[in-house]
Amino acid sequence: MFLARVIGTVWGTRKDEHLKGFKLQFIQPIDRRRNDVGDPVVAVDTVGAGPGETVMYITAREAVIPLPVDEAPVDASIVGIVDRIDISE
Amino acid sequence: MFLARVIGTVWGTRKDEHLKGFKLQFIQPIDRRRNDVGDPVVAVDTVGAGPGETVMYITAREAVIPLPVDEAPVDASIVGIVDRIDISE
Amino acid sequence: MFLARVIGTVWGTRKDEHLKGFKLQFIQPIDRRRNDVGDPVVAVDTVGAGPGETVMYITAREAVIPLPVDEAPVDASIVGIVDRIDISE
Amino acid sequence: MFLARVIGTVWGTRKDEHLKGFKLQFIQPIDRRRNDVGDPVVAVDTVGAGPGETVMYITAREAVIPLPVDEAPVDASIVGIVDRIDISE
Amino acid sequence: MFLARVIGTVWGTRKDEHLKGFKLQFIQPIDRRRNDVGDPVVAVDTVGAGPGETVMYITAREAVIPLPVDEAPVDASIVGIVDRIDISE
Repeated sequence: MFLARVIGTVWGTRKDEHLKGFKLQFIQPIDRRRNDVGDPVVAVDTVGAGPGETVMYITAREAVIPLPVDEAPVDASIVGIVDRIDISE
Repeated sequence: MFLARVIGTVWGTRKDEHLKGFKLQFIQPIDRRRNDVGDPVVAVDTVGAGPGETVMYITAREAVIPLPVDEAPVDASIVGIVDRIDISE
Repeated sequence: MFLARVIGTVWGTRKDEHLKGFKLQFIQPIDRRRNDVGDPVVAVDTVGAGPGETVMYITAREAVIPLPVDEAPVDASIVGIVDRIDISE
Repeated sequence: MFLARVIGTVWGTRKDEHLKGFKLQFIQPIDRRRNDVGDPVVAVDTVGAGPGETVMYITAREAVIPLPVDEAPVDASIVGIVDRIDISE
Repeated sequence: MFLARVIGTVWGTRKDEHLKGFKLQFIQPIDRRRNDVGDPVVAVDTVGAGPGETVMYITAREAVIPLPVDEAPVDASIVGIVDRIDISE
């Protein structure tokens, strides 16, 4: 999983029918110091993350697992909200 | 999902038979400010995106899900047309 | 799918038995202006592409779909020969 | 598999139910000289790696295989602790 | 498939049980001129490659196909030893 910060929401009415009903968050990947890295990703959110929260997200085929359907054209999902990171070095 | 802008169409007569009948769009990945990032990708389009429109696309194995076939040698598909992005920071 | 130019052929006698009988092309990924980007990839060719031709190729699990076998340790396949790209911007 | 060093632990109470009960390590990818490369990744740990240890980790769909469940929204898992690397050049 | 040169071997006693019995090679990805590109990868070897040899390797889910088991937490496998590359440009 990678870390990201929720920075917005993406809206579109013409989309694949499997995507209907899912909230699409716009998330900015971040590094361990919470600096931005790379470009934002559009991710399905089933944990109810809010703007500015640090989240863990997954990519690829696993991204459909949190969804209550058998398959969906989804390749990024938010799977948790990060409360704390303990760095041991 | 990632964001991209439709910049053209790709044509080829000699291709895998599973690809026949699908429209192949040439899409340019973009960042949150809609600037180009990286190189264009050839994506199957089932939502009817037009030139210049901002789209969401998926990659990898999920890319075949929007298609009306069981399997196809496809690794990028347009899954939605973006109407609006709300940035909350 | 991504664009590439066929630049050569890769030969090896000691290889996984699932790979035997397939032609392995050495392809150079290219951008929209047909300039080289990144490093060449070894791809299975089932469409009969020749040296110098522009091709579309796929990666990951879908790469086995064009092959006449149920599974093969293949992660890149040429799926079409590009005749023309229409750029609309 | 890639090499990484365990640098911390990630905590979150609001997460996908499939993730509950798994230890989430924060790991820093490293190169052959054990220098940091790229950004840390959040990986599930089933081998009991400790802080500072060099580990091998896998990504993508295979990452769920070490887990005692059929499926989980996991895309990175620690699969071994590295004792020694013999360089032959 | 990508090209790499075998540069060493990785050893670890505490690892996922599915990995036991497989030789783990440390391979350096190379470009068409056989220069190093990027960082080394840990790959399962079922073709018996030796130090310094040029190999083809695959990544992702296909990487388990060369193995004599149904599943394994493996995401990189050596699938062939390269004898010759003919460049046609």
